[in-house]
Amino acid sequence: MPSFSRLIRFLAKDGRVYYGDALLPRGVSDIAQATQARIVRGSIFGQHTVTDEIADVRTLLSPLAPEDVRTVRCLGLNYALHAKESGMALPKYPVLFFKPATSLAGPHDAIPVAPVAQEGEGLDYECELVVVIGKACKDVSEADALSVVLGYAVGNDVSHREWQLKRGGGQWSVGKGFDGWAPWGPGIVAASQLNPANLGIRTTLNGREVQASNTSDMIFSVRQAIAFLSRGTTLQPGDLIFTGTPSGVGMGRTPNLWLKDGDVVEVALEGVGSCVNKVVFEKERPKL
Amino acid sequence: MPSFSRLIRFLAKDGRVYYGDALLPRGVSDIAQATQARIVRGSIFGQHTVTDEIADVRTLLSPLAPEDVRTVRCLGLNYALHAKESGMALPKYPVLFFKPATSLAGPHDAIPVAPVAQEGEGLDYECELVVVIGKACKDVSEADALSVVLGYAVGNDVSHREWQLKRGGGQWSVGKGFDGWAPWGPGIVAASQLNPANLGIRTTLNGREVQASNTSDMIFSVRQAIAFLSRGTTLQPGDLIFTGTPSGVGMGRTPNLWLKDGDVVEVALEGVGSCVNKVVFEKERPKL
Repeated sequence: MPSFSRLIRFLAKDGRVYYGDALLPRGVSDIAQATQARIVRGSIFGQHTVTDEIADVRTLLSPLAPEDVRTVRCLGLNYALHAKESGMALPKYPVLFFKPATSLAGPHDAIPVAPVAQEGEGLDYECELVVVIGKACKDVSEADALSVVLGYAVGNDVSHREWQLKRGGGQWSVGKGFDGWAPWGPGIVAASQLNPANLGIRTTLNGREVQASNTSDMIFSVRQAIAFLSRGTTLQPGDLIFTGTPSGVGMGRTPNLWLKDGDVVEVALEGVGSCVNKVVFEKERPKL
Repeated sequence: MPSFSRLIRFLAKDGRVYYGDALLPRGVSDIAQATQARIVRGSIFGQHTVTDEIADVRTLLSPLAPEDVRTVRCLGLNYALHAKESGMALPKYPVLFFKPATSLAGPHDAIPVAPVAQEGEGLDYECELVVVIGKACKDVSEADALSVVLGYAVGNDVSHREWQLKRGGGQWSVGKGFDGWAPWGPGIVAASQLNPANLGIRTTLNGREVQASNTSDMIFSVRQAIAFLSRGTTLQPGDLIFTGTPSGVGMGRTPNLWLKDGDVVEVALEGVGSCVNKVVFEKERPKL
């Protein structure tokens, strides 16, 4: 298991991309504030070393390289108040959907809104605790579940409610799977450093707090989610689990609060830090 | 684009795994009958050569190595009669869901049914035309859609109706995503060799024909599916699209016809061949 505390992937001032263990100023816990890191060499999921080489951070990237993420699982309706605001029943089992790995983006990347996602209404934010699986596993017990976790991050499960709920034939995939619709980061806090069952989580939209909750309000805990999702199913190193969002999404408000071109949305998780992403409506029309 | 006609991945009699261009006896079109192949060297999605080296096939494997498949997209309700037998409305847009790459299996592998999938009723088969994407693309027009296709195969979108429809909170993911629940193959017929819009497709269960249709009955054609799925979304080389199943599934029958331990199910596509898979109920209990 990892020897780093706060794994980041970053473009350094020397123009190269590294993995690093973030160095934070005293009293700072938001990884996004890291300006330097100890370079990590080797395989993140296997043998690796936190070196004494210090690099200067220019830009934080998606905490894992895209080719290192196999499957992105997401839970729906995993906070009771969010299920209520969505007008849906509390789930008896975890509600699973997927986002393609191409939806992943870095903690400060723009959220691109393609013309297809400008049709209809309903561009929305969802702050979520993200679990990073560290080793291949199957049929994991709740008791052992945290032992397969590499660490935790925060992510935004960007969603288009009309595509998700009205145009998908009931399946949420299209409305949540566009390129860049899962910014995450700012880094991965090692599992040993954090209790995922009691972390403040919030979203700020253009400086105004719109979601504020605690992971203790999850219906299915991280342990339960891993145990459930691994039943008859192999989880692989680098798989991510977005564990659902609390209440306060734009869909749950009266009137609805949809993301607009130029909006800045910040999702933050206690002990981890924040992702700050600007919504950018794309101008090009698809050739369709 | 590829220089092979019928790509297979196989364990050879020399004990090694190769990609190959299948050699079929005269008059035979089912790739599963291949006993020899010309070894293909290089990158399947880039520079590669069909050599003159002949290898003897011992076992056909999943046509792409698991690490070469990024995302498995599937269409639901894409044949009108199947939508009707499922009691669902004809979709206005393609209905998209995902299977994790860990669900992929070879054309002759057993279909493992873990204890979790022995709960409740409803183990079912779904024969489908599988599209293999050959190059990275986004916002592809219908006119250009077939130019991004590496080739075609046949697959079985194994499904558990109770988990899919009653326990998933409306999302189909859990009931379709277990390990080994997407056997496919027996090989990939190059796009240039086949018209995907007019191919017979059928399922045989223990020797009895249970699905028989033609891909011409699809609601959304392969061209339309690629154009739709690539809107605002990058498709990657090695991505698969399972394009939906025709009528005749076990769920649509009176009485229902569920797969049992030991059943042998064959899915076949004209011009491609067949996958033959035995259903094997697993005995171990999960630790959950």
